[in-house]
Amino acid sequence: MTMSSPKRLAQLLSAHNTRPLFDSLEAFLFDCDGVIWKGDKLIHGVPQTLDLLRSKGKKLVFVTNNSTKSRRQYAIKFQSLGLSVTEDEIFSSSFAAAMYLKVNNFPQQNKVYVIGGEGIIEELQLAGYTGLGGPEDGEKRVQLKSNFLFEHDKTVMYHLAYFCWRNPFLFIYFFCSLKLICCSISQVGAVVVGLDPDINYYKLQYGTLCIRENPGCLFIATNRDAVGHMTDLQEWPGAGCMVGAMCGSTEKEPIVVGKPSTFMMEFLLKKFQIDTSKMCMVGDRLDTDILFGHNAGCKTLLVLSGVTTQSTLQDPSNNIQPDYYTGKISDILDLLGQ
Amino acid sequence: MTMSSPKRLAQLLSAHNTRPLFDSLEAFLFDCDGVIWKGDKLIHGVPQTLDLLRSKGKKLVFVTNNSTKSRRQYAIKFQSLGLSVTEDEIFSSSFAAAMYLKVNNFPQQNKVYVIGGEGIIEELQLAGYTGLGGPEDGEKRVQLKSNFLFEHDKTVMYHLAYFCWRNPFLFIYFFCSLKLICCSISQVGAVVVGLDPDINYYKLQYGTLCIRENPGCLFIATNRDAVGHMTDLQEWPGAGCMVGAMCGSTEKEPIVVGKPSTFMMEFLLKKFQIDTSKMCMVGDRLDTDILFGHNAGCKTLLVLSGVTTQSTLQDPSNNIQPDYYTGKISDILDLLGQ
Repeated sequence: MTMSSPKRLAQLLSAHNTRPLFDSLEAFLFDCDGVIWKGDKLIHGVPQTLDLLRSKGKKLVFVTNNSTKSRRQYAIKFQSLGLSVTEDEIFSSSFAAAMYLKVNNFPQQNKVYVIGGEGIIEELQLAGYTGLGGPEDGEKRVQLKSNFLFEHDKTVMYHLAYFCWRNPFLFIYFFCSLKLICCSISQVGAVVVGLDPDINYYKLQYGTLCIRENPGCLFIATNRDAVGHMTDLQEWPGAGCMVGAMCGSTEKEPIVVGKPSTFMMEFLLKKFQIDTSKMCMVGDRLDTDILFGHNAGCKTLLVLSGVTTQSTLQDPSNNIQPDYYTGKISDILDLLGQ
Repeated sequence: MTMSSPKRLAQLLSAHNTRPLFDSLEAFLFDCDGVIWKGDKLIHGVPQTLDLLRSKGKKLVFVTNNSTKSRRQYAIKFQSLGLSVTEDEIFSSSFAAAMYLKVNNFPQQNKVYVIGGEGIIEELQLAGYTGLGGPEDGEKRVQLKSNFLFEHDKTVMYHLAYFCWRNPFLFIYFFCSLKLICCSISQVGAVVVGLDPDINYYKLQYGTLCIRENPGCLFIATNRDAVGHMTDLQEWPGAGCMVGAMCGSTEKEPIVVGKPSTFMMEFLLKKFQIDTSKMCMVGDRLDTDILFGHNAGCKTLLVLSGVTTQSTLQDPSNNIQPDYYTGKISDILDLLGQ
């Protein structure tokens, strides 16, 4: 291993450098998949490590790109694994998607079409929005036959019926300019795309029509992770897969709210009011966790318990270097002599 | 409309320029969707136009990016619409995918995983290859639970059983290095991705595992069309959607064999032996048909009967200009005074 520019290369966490790092930090930001757990299995030594950090007065924050759950659902998952973590300590990309709409004053009467899990629908609801799609459209199929028109806003027909009932003249207008009416009252103003194991052509067509045909419709990606440990034994396509599909059909690029975007950092800073230089982002991915940490001005620690191997980290083609790396988070315990 | 560089802008086909163009050509290359038909409906005037061209001795070729059918299946579709077109006149991207493997000496003992339609499977078979997946995996679902391992080559377990039966020592080897064995005998050497209305997470995981984990596994895209007229009333996500999904999960770019790649042109030239300057590519898409024509050195004619509108063509942001444009192919008839 060449060490011509040692300051740039990640340092292996050691008995020598762990204590100064630990003392300089007020908060630890943890990714979850590959750091805290793999699928539904806790990674070795996690409870003891979190307990130690809390006992030393460190703030703990969990920043996850996995959008399948809401913050509330994540808190339940932590509890089911024996970890005491509150909703307030969790920042998921499902929450970030809802917050993006909120801070950008997305009108509450507009609907949001969701390619993703229940977590996004729930966070949208908590923020006062109506999410369509998601798990509800998981079993839907399309009919590719002549004269079949795919309607991309379920509210359209209800509104038409209502308007026609209120004003019979609209019946005539309706039949004269069906397409115009459909477009003008179509209420989907944003499509949120996250990890969706129930991805199908129905959802892809729905989201594609909204983005291509509804003027100003937002295209929001919770994240673009290529793969993730959806089970403990192997990696599966991540949200980057569904987002890539939508990029392919819409020829547009999304607004990404999850890591490495620092959008979530604003909320985090508002809540914890700690200087980012006193935070350490701990994650298993270079292109999301470590880049997020870099972008936000945090210290960064890569753990090798998830998707990144040591050889990937040290490959000359890799240009994202964390400040430190180690096998798993419980190494901190050992290195501090606890 | 500004005409500061008239040579660059597309000319509207007129009574003035149609005859010289027509006389200079020996072959017409037609795209199908949006040119010959929309979904299952023939576009007005097509039979008469093709009849006239044949009667004047012009060669007709049909070059389609739609990979859902094989050449044989396309010939049947042409016949069902009352058009007499032979398999030899059809160049589909399903055929191109199989030919790409053939000309690159892809080993016949290797399997090909297909995210796409029956057409690709049939063309692979005709070329001597075994395609896995396709419509057969359309209803398959995954189990995202602990200890579930997704097997990405159905032949692996048969081979293991066979080897173990032949040599009991392999039992030990098997248990010692399961991953190594799985990788070394995994027989999927290429993944072909085309339009797939039965896209699901099972197929995406299968293709992703092959490309990420099988050394040297090829990633072939039939085409990257964003949308297409799968029905006559509206556009639907095209192969670009499925290809985008696979790019997102594999972090790799595919080899594209359909338009605008000129891969198919080699076969076409071998068959017809006509100089490309005496060919006219007629299509409804700028980024596939017209670009393909340009790349191959053909004359190009855009028809507005498909996905491209006149305003898209004339938008300042569009930098792909055909030589000529017209509403539909039967305009040729009228303009020639036939």
